[in-house]
Amino acid sequence: MSDPRFSEWMAQQQQRAERALDAALPGATIAPSRLHEAMRYTTLGGGKRVRPLLAFAAGEVSKACTAALEAAACAVECIHVYSLVHDDMPCMDDDSLRRGKPTVHVQYDEATALLVGDALQTQAFDLLSAPGLFGDASRQLRALHTLAQASGSRGMAGGQAIDLGSVGKEISLAELEVMHLHKTGALIRAAVLLGGLAGDLNDEALRQLDQYAKCIGLLFQVVDDVLDATADTATLGKTAGKDAANNKPTYVSLLGLSESRKLAEELARQAEEAIATLGDRALRLREMARYIVSRQF
Amino acid sequence: MSDPRFSEWMAQQQQRAERALDAALPGATIAPSRLHEAMRYTTLGGGKRVRPLLAFAAGEVSKACTAALEAAACAVECIHVYSLVHDDMPCMDDDSLRRGKPTVHVQYDEATALLVGDALQTQAFDLLSAPGLFGDASRQLRALHTLAQASGSRGMAGGQAIDLGSVGKEISLAELEVMHLHKTGALIRAAVLLGGLAGDLNDEALRQLDQYAKCIGLLFQVVDDVLDATADTATLGKTAGKDAANNKPTYVSLLGLSESRKLAEELARQAEEAIATLGDRALRLREMARYIVSRQF
Repeated sequence: MSDPRFSEWMAQQQQRAERALDAALPGATIAPSRLHEAMRYTTLGGGKRVRPLLAFAAGEVSKACTAALEAAACAVECIHVYSLVHDDMPCMDDDSLRRGKPTVHVQYDEATALLVGDALQTQAFDLLSAPGLFGDASRQLRALHTLAQASGSRGMAGGQAIDLGSVGKEISLAELEVMHLHKTGALIRAAVLLGGLAGDLNDEALRQLDQYAKCIGLLFQVVDDVLDATADTATLGKTAGKDAANNKPTYVSLLGLSESRKLAEELARQAEEAIATLGDRALRLREMARYIVSRQF
Repeated sequence: MSDPRFSEWMAQQQQRAERALDAALPGATIAPSRLHEAMRYTTLGGGKRVRPLLAFAAGEVSKACTAALEAAACAVECIHVYSLVHDDMPCMDDDSLRRGKPTVHVQYDEATALLVGDALQTQAFDLLSAPGLFGDASRQLRALHTLAQASGSRGMAGGQAIDLGSVGKEISLAELEVMHLHKTGALIRAAVLLGGLAGDLNDEALRQLDQYAKCIGLLFQVVDDVLDATADTATLGKTAGKDAANNKPTYVSLLGLSESRKLAEELARQAEEAIATLGDRALRLREMARYIVSRQF
């Protein structure tokens, strides 16, 4: 599906994300060391880094400066990881496995998991607000505001709340889409936009990136639902089949497996179409769409 | 203790904080409405608003623009309220009363409390990153960075982690001070600095505000410990005596009541001295120091 050069690019960018996160997080010897160790435990050494990859791919379109782009990628990933840590807690999904490792509240304790999530969220805004990071302070503010809006009660956290309220209920496909546009889509969209904002793009190019990102956000969730229904826990590195077990509505439960796969293909096509006029610079974004639709875990 | 004009100013500024928070938080009818309702439940209609008052008092020194100053005050208060909501959860202090009302996890549920705290933290950065809020985008970035550093793992969240690790342990006065400089002091310091940054001050004036704010942060905690040991639950609006019950080290447990009160007076004196050369514009800051040292709840 993906050409060998894309696999190589992806591996390089995953390593880049890992290095940047390692440098961005406080060292495990800095006080309070247990908190910092737990922040590093959950953030480093795992994950597909889809959001950083999308930011890096968008950064090729915007010819972003390295420091701004890596801070943007790390900030989005810190928000993502914080949401996983809190989502895994006993009062939410009560999950014990994430990225193939015990979740933070299992490895440490619940209070530490709470603080790790809290501190990772702050770390995101800390990284992205470093003075002089972007050449242009107004563009940096726009990136911060984009990230905040994507993460908060009308973005990701709001999607979590809708998800909480939907457990065990009949919901329509439209309602499911609203939930995912918030819960997963908003932050994926922010990853792409921040990659764009880390360089210099006109509003029309940003609008095209945004359209691409909206399709990718939904696509990612459709594929996630398919994988949750079809893959096993060892392959996923997280508990498989938990949506069905938790009686959560998914694309698969609403549309069936075959229609969900068709929807995924259609969303990938729409994503590629949205950036058709951006030319060669958007190669990695196109490849990311193909990668996400065909991923196995 | 405080002159009548100060009481009047304080009441006005508390109402101002309430109005600004009411306008800053998403309406309870906006989806997801249960999350927004819970965010408003815990944020509005209560609290002494010490941090907004400090921001407003510092804003008189910097001649801050109203929109920037109110956003700064609300952002700091949102961070404070999020920390209370998470701190009250069963895996932390497990408290059922806050500001005279049932805590969020009691009134709603634990998952909602987790999301309310998460979303209030994001709301703070959302408010403070609004495009064009400060006349000067670089100054606005500095305010955002100040808030993030004060709130994160090397600020407030770090202080919470130190606190967690100290329960039931013997700690020294120096260690207690380090804990409080993080847990309470960092955000109080940010409140004052953001009030300064919302207007235009030179670095020397900001340094004086910072020195004032450091003293106030410790002062606030010393007085809190005295009140926890001496006042009753009805007066405090939160569970009294819980530090002793939780075997937590406090100024009172380390120094005794009488020495703790002397320390509070000394810190108030140092705070006033730090801003002695700022003249009439710093009147409210001086009054705030007197208010905090003599507060009864």
